[in-house]
Amino acid sequence: MSNPQLDRATILTEALPYIQRYNGKVVVINCGGVAMNQELRDAVATDITMLRLVGIKVVLVHGIGPEVRQALKDAGKELPVVDGFPQVNEEAMELVQETLCGKVNKTLVATLNKLGAKAIGLCGVDGGFLTAKSSGGEYSRTGDLVQVDGAILEGFLAQGYTPVVATIAQGAEDVSQAYSVSANQTAAKLAVALKAEKLIHLVAAEQLLHAPDAPETPIPVLPLSQVPALIRNGTIPGDMAGKVNFSVEAVRSGVKSATLLDGSVPHAILLELLSDEGIGTMLTH
Amino acid sequence: MSNPQLDRATILTEALPYIQRYNGKVVVINCGGVAMNQELRDAVATDITMLRLVGIKVVLVHGIGPEVRQALKDAGKELPVVDGFPQVNEEAMELVQETLCGKVNKTLVATLNKLGAKAIGLCGVDGGFLTAKSSGGEYSRTGDLVQVDGAILEGFLAQGYTPVVATIAQGAEDVSQAYSVSANQTAAKLAVALKAEKLIHLVAAEQLLHAPDAPETPIPVLPLSQVPALIRNGTIPGDMAGKVNFSVEAVRSGVKSATLLDGSVPHAILLELLSDEGIGTMLTH
Amino acid sequence: MSNPQLDRATILTEALPYIQRYNGKVVVINCGGVAMNQELRDAVATDITMLRLVGIKVVLVHGIGPEVRQALKDAGKELPVVDGFPQVNEEAMELVQETLCGKVNKTLVATLNKLGAKAIGLCGVDGGFLTAKSSGGEYSRTGDLVQVDGAILEGFLAQGYTPVVATIAQGAEDVSQAYSVSANQTAAKLAVALKAEKLIHLVAAEQLLHAPDAPETPIPVLPLSQVPALIRNGTIPGDMAGKVNFSVEAVRSGVKSATLLDGSVPHAILLELLSDEGIGTMLTH
Amino acid sequence: MSNPQLDRATILTEALPYIQRYNGKVVVINCGGVAMNQELRDAVATDITMLRLVGIKVVLVHGIGPEVRQALKDAGKELPVVDGFPQVNEEAMELVQETLCGKVNKTLVATLNKLGAKAIGLCGVDGGFLTAKSSGGEYSRTGDLVQVDGAILEGFLAQGYTPVVATIAQGAEDVSQAYSVSANQTAAKLAVALKAEKLIHLVAAEQLLHAPDAPETPIPVLPLSQVPALIRNGTIPGDMAGKVNFSVEAVRSGVKSATLLDGSVPHAILLELLSDEGIGTMLTH
Amino acid sequence: MSNPQLDRATILTEALPYIQRYNGKVVVINCGGVAMNQELRDAVATDITMLRLVGIKVVLVHGIGPEVRQALKDAGKELPVVDGFPQVNEEAMELVQETLCGKVNKTLVATLNKLGAKAIGLCGVDGGFLTAKSSGGEYSRTGDLVQVDGAILEGFLAQGYTPVVATIAQGAEDVSQAYSVSANQTAAKLAVALKAEKLIHLVAAEQLLHAPDAPETPIPVLPLSQVPALIRNGTIPGDMAGKVNFSVEAVRSGVKSATLLDGSVPHAILLELLSDEGIGTMLTH
Amino acid sequence: MSNPQLDRATILTEALPYIQRYNGKVVVINCGGVAMNQELRDAVATDITMLRLVGIKVVLVHGIGPEVRQALKDAGKELPVVDGFPQVNEEAMELVQETLCGKVNKTLVATLNKLGAKAIGLCGVDGGFLTAKSSGGEYSRTGDLVQVDGAILEGFLAQGYTPVVATIAQGAEDVSQAYSVSANQTAAKLAVALKAEKLIHLVAAEQLLHAPDAPETPIPVLPLSQVPALIRNGTIPGDMAGKVNFSVEAVRSGVKSATLLDGSVPHAILLELLSDEGIGTMLTH
Repeated sequence: MSNPQLDRATILTEALPYIQRYNGKVVVINCGGVAMNQELRDAVATDITMLRLVGIKVVLVHGIGPEVRQALKDAGKELPVVDGFPQVNEEAMELVQETLCGKVNKTLVATLNKLGAKAIGLCGVDGGFLTAKSSGGEYSRTGDLVQVDGAILEGFLAQGYTPVVATIAQGAEDVSQAYSVSANQTAAKLAVALKAEKLIHLVAAEQLLHAPDAPETPIPVLPLSQVPALIRNGTIPGDMAGKVNFSVEAVRSGVKSATLLDGSVPHAILLELLSDEGIGTMLTH
Repeated sequence: MSNPQLDRATILTEALPYIQRYNGKVVVINCGGVAMNQELRDAVATDITMLRLVGIKVVLVHGIGPEVRQALKDAGKELPVVDGFPQVNEEAMELVQETLCGKVNKTLVATLNKLGAKAIGLCGVDGGFLTAKSSGGEYSRTGDLVQVDGAILEGFLAQGYTPVVATIAQGAEDVSQAYSVSANQTAAKLAVALKAEKLIHLVAAEQLLHAPDAPETPIPVLPLSQVPALIRNGTIPGDMAGKVNFSVEAVRSGVKSATLLDGSVPHAILLELLSDEGIGTMLTH
Repeated sequence: MSNPQLDRATILTEALPYIQRYNGKVVVINCGGVAMNQELRDAVATDITMLRLVGIKVVLVHGIGPEVRQALKDAGKELPVVDGFPQVNEEAMELVQETLCGKVNKTLVATLNKLGAKAIGLCGVDGGFLTAKSSGGEYSRTGDLVQVDGAILEGFLAQGYTPVVATIAQGAEDVSQAYSVSANQTAAKLAVALKAEKLIHLVAAEQLLHAPDAPETPIPVLPLSQVPALIRNGTIPGDMAGKVNFSVEAVRSGVKSATLLDGSVPHAILLELLSDEGIGTMLTH
Repeated sequence: MSNPQLDRATILTEALPYIQRYNGKVVVINCGGVAMNQELRDAVATDITMLRLVGIKVVLVHGIGPEVRQALKDAGKELPVVDGFPQVNEEAMELVQETLCGKVNKTLVATLNKLGAKAIGLCGVDGGFLTAKSSGGEYSRTGDLVQVDGAILEGFLAQGYTPVVATIAQGAEDVSQAYSVSANQTAAKLAVALKAEKLIHLVAAEQLLHAPDAPETPIPVLPLSQVPALIRNGTIPGDMAGKVNFSVEAVRSGVKSATLLDGSVPHAILLELLSDEGIGTMLTH
Repeated sequence: MSNPQLDRATILTEALPYIQRYNGKVVVINCGGVAMNQELRDAVATDITMLRLVGIKVVLVHGIGPEVRQALKDAGKELPVVDGFPQVNEEAMELVQETLCGKVNKTLVATLNKLGAKAIGLCGVDGGFLTAKSSGGEYSRTGDLVQVDGAILEGFLAQGYTPVVATIAQGAEDVSQAYSVSANQTAAKLAVALKAEKLIHLVAAEQLLHAPDAPETPIPVLPLSQVPALIRNGTIPGDMAGKVNFSVEAVRSGVKSATLLDGSVPHAILLELLSDEGIGTMLTH
Repeated sequence: MSNPQLDRATILTEALPYIQRYNGKVVVINCGGVAMNQELRDAVATDITMLRLVGIKVVLVHGIGPEVRQALKDAGKELPVVDGFPQVNEEAMELVQETLCGKVNKTLVATLNKLGAKAIGLCGVDGGFLTAKSSGGEYSRTGDLVQVDGAILEGFLAQGYTPVVATIAQGAEDVSQAYSVSANQTAAKLAVALKAEKLIHLVAAEQLLHAPDAPETPIPVLPLSQVPALIRNGTIPGDMAGKVNFSVEAVRSGVKSATLLDGSVPHAILLELLSDEGIGTMLTH
């Protein structure tokens, strides 16, 4: 047999222990608002389809990203961003919801369907599985999650569907109100509700480094206990602190680990889950 | 016992044979693009919740209506209407999809959830359960349904959810393309796929009349065989012909009956299904 | 729409929250030995059929009533009544059992079947689901319930049948002996065994009144704590004390509430369960 | 090992092929109206309990017998008998039903329960599983079976219960009317509906003989084709012709065989089914 | 009826309470290494088939016996026996495994299949349901059970199969090593894992006697508390002590009782389980 | 990302369409009697474990190979080979069965278990799922398959087990006789019984060639219609004709395709099923 054949076989069989590790488990992937061109989106969809076929149950969460921002900009309704999470007021809410649920969500679903992942797009209003209350103030349509009900998604996963979740929640008090919620919070709380084995955040950044600008000092594994210090000293930059804090809470609540992955690396998800290539930063006990 | 008590009991018990007739059966309700103010929407949602509780499985279909048209008008992209069905071009498609799936669908879902109907909003892209091909020409994003897969909706109905379907379909050939499809066609074909007992169209008109402007000549029951003549002589007006023709096809394919109901009458659905009040026009063999 | 139509729709939709409240729950109805002419029996059967269709699981319990007494009188074997519960001796037992299981039970079953309620008649000997021991003395075939096994009835309810239970129990010690047991006790203990939401007693009396003969002083709700005082001062008459005491015990053991309803009011059950008409006296915490 | 031990083991193991033959199969036993003293009833109940434990699904059918006749005689309402089947008029019906459903049925159920056979007593009114129409004339409450629905009994058998069926049927046209039906017909039609392996009639007579009064000429197996001739020449006596004819029809409709057994032989059922002792007359193809 | 008929029926019905006692329960039978000629093997297979048909779930365990010893002798590899359990070294292991799994196991399976018992032969390597570690020393392939997983066998029993277990276990540490384990230990631990009602050891000896050589002093029931003294004084002979001690542990862990039966008595199992013939010695609390 | 990472991801994602193709399907792998050293056996086990994890249901069949032949040689009982299938006489049968079921089978099971494939070893005697009759003559224990019952294996596959089948069958007429059957026939008939998507034969040879000794003329795909000619002209060598003919029959009976693979290529199975590397010869319509 020629070498390429052997290499191919070797790489496939090297995935074996990883597949066994995650087989039948839930993985929640938060692509948040990471900019994804067609190629990256296809790579993410390919990875998710592959994971589903090897028996891993994937939930994809997406929040306000470039498309929504562009739509708001076009309409002259740009949103301020606090801790990496865009703030939504009464005026902007309708456009946010329409773009998120009506466009971005359905584009992701179609991309996954094209590869055979049997995706179904939902937001938290559907079956009321995410409920939130206003975080108050001017940006009153920015919500804070009150309750996350995993039953509908579990039903989909059990039937082999891949749920794609847009971060719109139903009002906890007034069901007819909808709120924009953080993808970081949603993904973390869904991971807990679904007893996920892993929570993955795709981020617009390379691996965390011990020394800024020194790529030879990556942080592949980050114990929960070190997080506060690294946030204080800026090793974990301010716009990542929210994501990290929600993840810390998720891991404390039973999710095995949470990983930050550079969303610009094609197939980063597959490499993270099915090989020993350490390309992200993993938070764990 | 006072008379009002007896009346109340009498009305409830009079619904008994109708509940028995539809118990466990599927009813597809097409509210198409009928204008619904808050009060009418609440009445429709109340009716659907009531039907669900007495064991009737309801699917609600909604298409391009006033909200979508207003959004297009605001954006300077008004759509021409052919046979009562708005035509969609490349330029308008995104806005149509966003408003339909991201706004109208979620508003209906929230209204139903508020009453306890456990609604879930979907469009045909989700799980790819509606596929269409372009009907060609300038309005290339107007689609004609190629396939309707009832399995996902049956799953929801079996679990007690009420599916709310926006009329966007996945491309039959190119999965990444989406098409706007007619609510009349979608409702009719879903009724066939789900082996529905009844198909109800809410229309923006009163009961069909034998003599125009003579309300004392209503047509409560319309045999399929008489339809062609009534379309020719204008008794069935041009903008209702499409709806009627799709319904004729549905009844020919196994749906027991299809009824046109005046959507401006509060609780028209409940009265039609659970009483002997004849307020619509029913097509049947 | 004409007013009658609107009224009809209004009354139907007003039942919605009540249906939601009892949907999927068990309600045990004790018609005890209340005299029922054909019209009243039909009304009760209509109500039960309606409840079953809106997803409520009904068990009907019936005890020694006018038919049995008449049969005994004709045979010269009249029974003494203690606390509203007829006492049975060896000599009368066979006739009691024959009339109760062979006549009254089957008449109720047929009346329910006629309306589509899919009734099945049983006594406690069947599958031995009610066992009793003799309460001793001269009337040795009057039994006191020892064990109530809800499994058979739960099986029937899950399959959509309406069980109709005659108050004959199997001997706890000698299986070949049968005993006549109190409908009040049987209904109360079945309600506990089946984790019923509500226990309803049809009684031969109007609503309890604070002041006797003053219909303007009804007692719609009666907290358990007030019962002993009201029995002592006669507000709860002696022949109702047994019924009330068994009900108090049932509510203490987990049944949500127990209601005394005037069995001579047609459709009293439906009005009590599906409207806010307060026509009975409800015992609750 | 002593001989008695070996004998015991031998007899038990000789039952093996017979148990295998009937395991999981339905056997309908018609004890019709055979007079049974306590001892015989206990033996029948023992046999049925044993059959149930070795995986045979038994249905016991009983009709008008000595107890009912005595009750009618005591009430001065004796019934004429045509072809072995007592004729019932309006006047006698109530007493027939009461004695059959309220006394005989419950006595058999209690006897079986005592041995652990988990019996449930039913008549055809319960769930309406037997429907009949009047055979007309003076004895208008004698019914002819119109429909037999095996579903309820199959449900009981699947759950391990032993159904005991009293031969009262619900009116096919007027549900509120009940009819007395022949145990021979009921057992035969139930055997067909339940796809029984065997139909057994307990009869008040010894094995059929080729030559009357010559016990040395028994007929152990009787092919269907010989029945008409044997009825004509009186070998099959007139009062057995009905039983035999219904059995012939059952075997023609799929029941494997039907056997006439002398009901006065203790444990005749067990010997017939689980040994090679030929003590009855078997009708088969 | 002639006497033989009655006797036959009597013996069958006398088995009734015993069948009821064991119905649906698990019985583990250890035929260990007892020498079985064709006739005895057929009798054991008949008994097991009979037990399965009356609803008893049987697991048969067999260990190193005459066939294996003969094979080893032929190959010049005889094994020493310690406490009745043959010791296996590296050299002998392959032959032991081949003879046990490839010959003895399949012969027992075929014998059971012939009678209709639907047997499936397994050893502890299959699905890894028995794991062991070496007991060390020269006879390093003699193993001590570390874990017993009842799930596979429960699956078989639920589907009506009779598992036949050869006493070869998978290495607890090195999966590729197999060990010979004691049938006494295997049967006892399987009985615990399967929550068995009874554990039966077929032994090459008659019933235990209080006084040696005095057959009139049998020990039919032996309380656990008396075991140590009887082992010390030799009433329980040395070669039976192991069997007894594992049984004591099983009964302490939840198995209802354990019985030693003389394997040379045909149908000893059937007599023990389905009659009141006391032919063995039963250990119980 | 470095190139090796990208390559790794690329190779994994290239397997996607193949996994989708075989997901949920049955693949029968016949390793026949191919000589396998530890390394090759580990590679086969790795491949099978991988296939199982990506949702492919694998059945492994093994027949008489080097281990059995060596055992026979050591015992002086060498077998003649006809059409590549060793012939077994009375004298050799026991040793064949012991080595096949007791040694080779359990070694394969342990190797698979070590990797996590949850293997269970069986031969056709277990549950009697393979029955055969003697092919007669001197080698009377060589059998020809009469019946193949897939139910037991389907049960195992549905529960996630990997069945490993030794080619010993139960006598179709005399259950107590066992026969040695051809692995080629067994695998082919099991593939048909299990409605397999693919049948794979590992062979001791490289890919078939159009011109002998000209490796540049491989036959990657072989239509059934060309087989007879290629056997006649020797392109398919005599010792492969049997394998090919059984495969032709399997493909004619519904198996999608059958492939001959060089068993000496590590991971040949994985490459064949999960990549587009054409390393074998595939028979198809």
